[in-house]
Amino acid sequence: MARDITRRDEDYSRWYQDIVLKAELADYAPVKGCMVIRPYGYAIWEKMQAALDRMFRETGHVNAYFPLLIPESFLHKEAEHVEGFSPECAVVTHAGGAKLEEPYVIRPTSETIIWSMYRKWIQSYRDLPLLINQWCNVLRWELRTRLFLRTTEFLWQEGHTAHATSEEAEEETLRMLEVYRTFVQGTMALPVIAGLKTEREKFAGALRTYCIEGMMQDRKALQAGTSHSLGQNFARAFDVTFLDQDGERKLVWATSWGVSTRLIGALVMTHSDDSGLVLPPKLAPLEVVIVPIYRSDTERSLVLEKAAEIKARVSTRFTVRLDDRDQFKPGFKFSEWELKGVPLRLELGPRDVAAGQVVAVRRDNGEKKSFPDSGVVTAVDESLKAMQENMFQKALEFQIKNTVKIDNYEDFKEFMARDGGFAMVHWAGSGKDEERIQEETKATIRCIPLEAEEEEGICFLTGKKSLKRVVAAKAY
Amino acid sequence: MARDITRRDEDYSRWYQDIVLKAELADYAPVKGCMVIRPYGYAIWEKMQAALDRMFRETGHVNAYFPLLIPESFLHKEAEHVEGFSPECAVVTHAGGAKLEEPYVIRPTSETIIWSMYRKWIQSYRDLPLLINQWCNVLRWELRTRLFLRTTEFLWQEGHTAHATSEEAEEETLRMLEVYRTFVQGTMALPVIAGLKTEREKFAGALRTYCIEGMMQDRKALQAGTSHSLGQNFARAFDVTFLDQDGERKLVWATSWGVSTRLIGALVMTHSDDSGLVLPPKLAPLEVVIVPIYRSDTERSLVLEKAAEIKARVSTRFTVRLDDRDQFKPGFKFSEWELKGVPLRLELGPRDVAAGQVVAVRRDNGEKKSFPDSGVVTAVDESLKAMQENMFQKALEFQIKNTVKIDNYEDFKEFMARDGGFAMVHWAGSGKDEERIQEETKATIRCIPLEAEEEEGICFLTGKKSLKRVVAAKAY
Repeated sequence: MARDITRRDEDYSRWYQDIVLKAELADYAPVKGCMVIRPYGYAIWEKMQAALDRMFRETGHVNAYFPLLIPESFLHKEAEHVEGFSPECAVVTHAGGAKLEEPYVIRPTSETIIWSMYRKWIQSYRDLPLLINQWCNVLRWELRTRLFLRTTEFLWQEGHTAHATSEEAEEETLRMLEVYRTFVQGTMALPVIAGLKTEREKFAGALRTYCIEGMMQDRKALQAGTSHSLGQNFARAFDVTFLDQDGERKLVWATSWGVSTRLIGALVMTHSDDSGLVLPPKLAPLEVVIVPIYRSDTERSLVLEKAAEIKARVSTRFTVRLDDRDQFKPGFKFSEWELKGVPLRLELGPRDVAAGQVVAVRRDNGEKKSFPDSGVVTAVDESLKAMQENMFQKALEFQIKNTVKIDNYEDFKEFMARDGGFAMVHWAGSGKDEERIQEETKATIRCIPLEAEEEEGICFLTGKKSLKRVVAAKAY
Repeated sequence: MARDITRRDEDYSRWYQDIVLKAELADYAPVKGCMVIRPYGYAIWEKMQAALDRMFRETGHVNAYFPLLIPESFLHKEAEHVEGFSPECAVVTHAGGAKLEEPYVIRPTSETIIWSMYRKWIQSYRDLPLLINQWCNVLRWELRTRLFLRTTEFLWQEGHTAHATSEEAEEETLRMLEVYRTFVQGTMALPVIAGLKTEREKFAGALRTYCIEGMMQDRKALQAGTSHSLGQNFARAFDVTFLDQDGERKLVWATSWGVSTRLIGALVMTHSDDSGLVLPPKLAPLEVVIVPIYRSDTERSLVLEKAAEIKARVSTRFTVRLDDRDQFKPGFKFSEWELKGVPLRLELGPRDVAAGQVVAVRRDNGEKKSFPDSGVVTAVDESLKAMQENMFQKALEFQIKNTVKIDNYEDFKEFMARDGGFAMVHWAGSGKDEERIQEETKATIRCIPLEAEEEEGICFLTGKKSLKRVVAAKAY
């Protein structure tokens, strides 16, 4: 166990904080509830952005940028929206040395300002669909914050699309949910359950909110992305209509969808261990580190020469660093790169050079392998691929192991009080019933899975009929 | 002249606004002084970001993200800084439904919040240099705004570096100025003069501000980037010291440097014409458009088949669109793509197909050339390269033609009242003298060029001795 990281079984929450701070992903800022995303953490975000942005483009979306400030009156145009977001807003009342006539809020999300512009841009069915995404910062005044997972300011992307029909909007909502699922599972190696939020948990102003939910190592759920079918609510609020092919003027249909820097927190919580960060190769800013091992100057020059040659070859396809710092011993370097979650460590000593081989150590499972240095690029490639796949499988097994069917409230309470996890329960309760469950067990209905089999049953709380099990869990 | 764009010689300012709005680069937002950057404009910004970000990395910088909000008291820690920026700040006084104990300002620039963090991160000479860049939004409450050139909120990058010595900081300041010059000249095709700002014009809190100044088509200057040598001002304000190799604790030296979405305004003003936008190939979101020409269904299928084949080949190296919209005539499409500034248009009619050729029309000079369709990729490549170079040369010639040596104030006043341009004048005046010139002529000292020859002379206003000419001009 390296660098005084609290063990997970000792204090999970402190373990998480230790990893984030000591791996230098982020730091606390002198602004309430805010963090600074440090270069190493930001590099992970940039890799996430690149992967997501490519997927957004492939599905026909373009990027744009809308103002940070939103006239306060805009929020009030959609009743549920203002009720949901108003209490969390930061308000600009003064600017340029004077009091403003109308205050501005800093965007907590951009539906209102964006739909005020869509009114200008959408006239006819030819202007639809309008498929725009924005990468930006948003602010929500949170009382209890935690690095990455819940911060007052965070970075995210928010897609806002406009469609001619309800069907198209619904298709888009599900398409983007699928993009998120593909990214989170394929790139973050985080298995998720895709589903529909209950009325109580949906986005303020949406008809339906879809989400993907992952399980962290403390068995709590984490919502990793949401996609909203907004109906005609924002079109109505901002009077956005189009002339359809049939000559009639109609209200436009909307969707919005987003993921945020919270995903970095999910990444840490899913894969990391008591030695530090464990990063899936696809998101590691540094994929390979080479640690040379030597005891004399002769050995040093021998080993470093070979190491430089290996680095040159590996760097044609991967980001690699040769850690040739003289002031640190190999063991110290091992711990440091483990803390930083570098997927693959290549060790090279005089005997390896003589034998024409390299030793590779995988970060995810500690597996150690030697291979001929002539085949180093292929071996690195195979190791990283195996690691990406293994991390997903391991997380999936953990999720499955901690997902149980529960059929009565007493068992449910005991489950949530003990280890917790995903409880698959029949559910036919109201928002009030959900509130009660949350008060009594801290758990909430995370989602109604899209892909659950039909199964007749009765609601574990109300005894009413139900046709499907839902996921209930304590959540971040 | 297409699409009701005001002619430059009629009303330059309206021409600019027409281009920005009609080419759909940006739109006015319902927030004072703010704009929406529309997808086409944002795509140009993304290309700028990609090119600059690569150059920042090549010079050893990494990206990070600091909070949007800055405690008001932070600004006050550096006397000149607060005086310069305080009047322009937007202030958050309420959040989460309550009045804040201490107000926050929305960052107008991030020196203060960043140096408050550097205090935690810098302990020893081993922590230096610290080379961090941030891409973000900033807010400055401006009274008179203009799309891209001066908006209340804008996007930019701000580099903030920390160094052990004054020399290193100065080197960094000039290195980044050079990065900007290389980018602006090589990628934006905008010739600039690099120089030092006068005391009056320097950044609030800097020892020295370096800048690059370009000339727009109305002969006004536009500051395209700045790089500041901040001395130890911010280290002193935030108590940032390091233990040096000699065992002594010393204050850290700082630089900061930035360019913003204002560059998009500069791009438009430098190259565009009365038909619309003219984009240098290196920044064009769409480099090539293919317009098929046909009069019958038979011709249509013949031409479109060939066009699709050409598109497939060109798209292996360039972004290309085949404009096969049936509802518009070729002439309409020509104007539309001219308005959008697409560098190269390929025209293809039945006779071209029969002759195995393509007609290419360059956006910068209207040059029309035929070439065999088998060599289309090479021909496109050569045309785009020639265009990039030609745009720079044309802008440089314009700048040189409108740069004149002036030796007395009467001539200067007449020059500024007539056409204006860059006046190369001997200067040894004070800040007060500069103020007088600005009041009487609207011109300011833009910079003291780094590369001017030494030349003895006397200040055109004060008659004092001077060893170098400076650039004076009206400016955006």
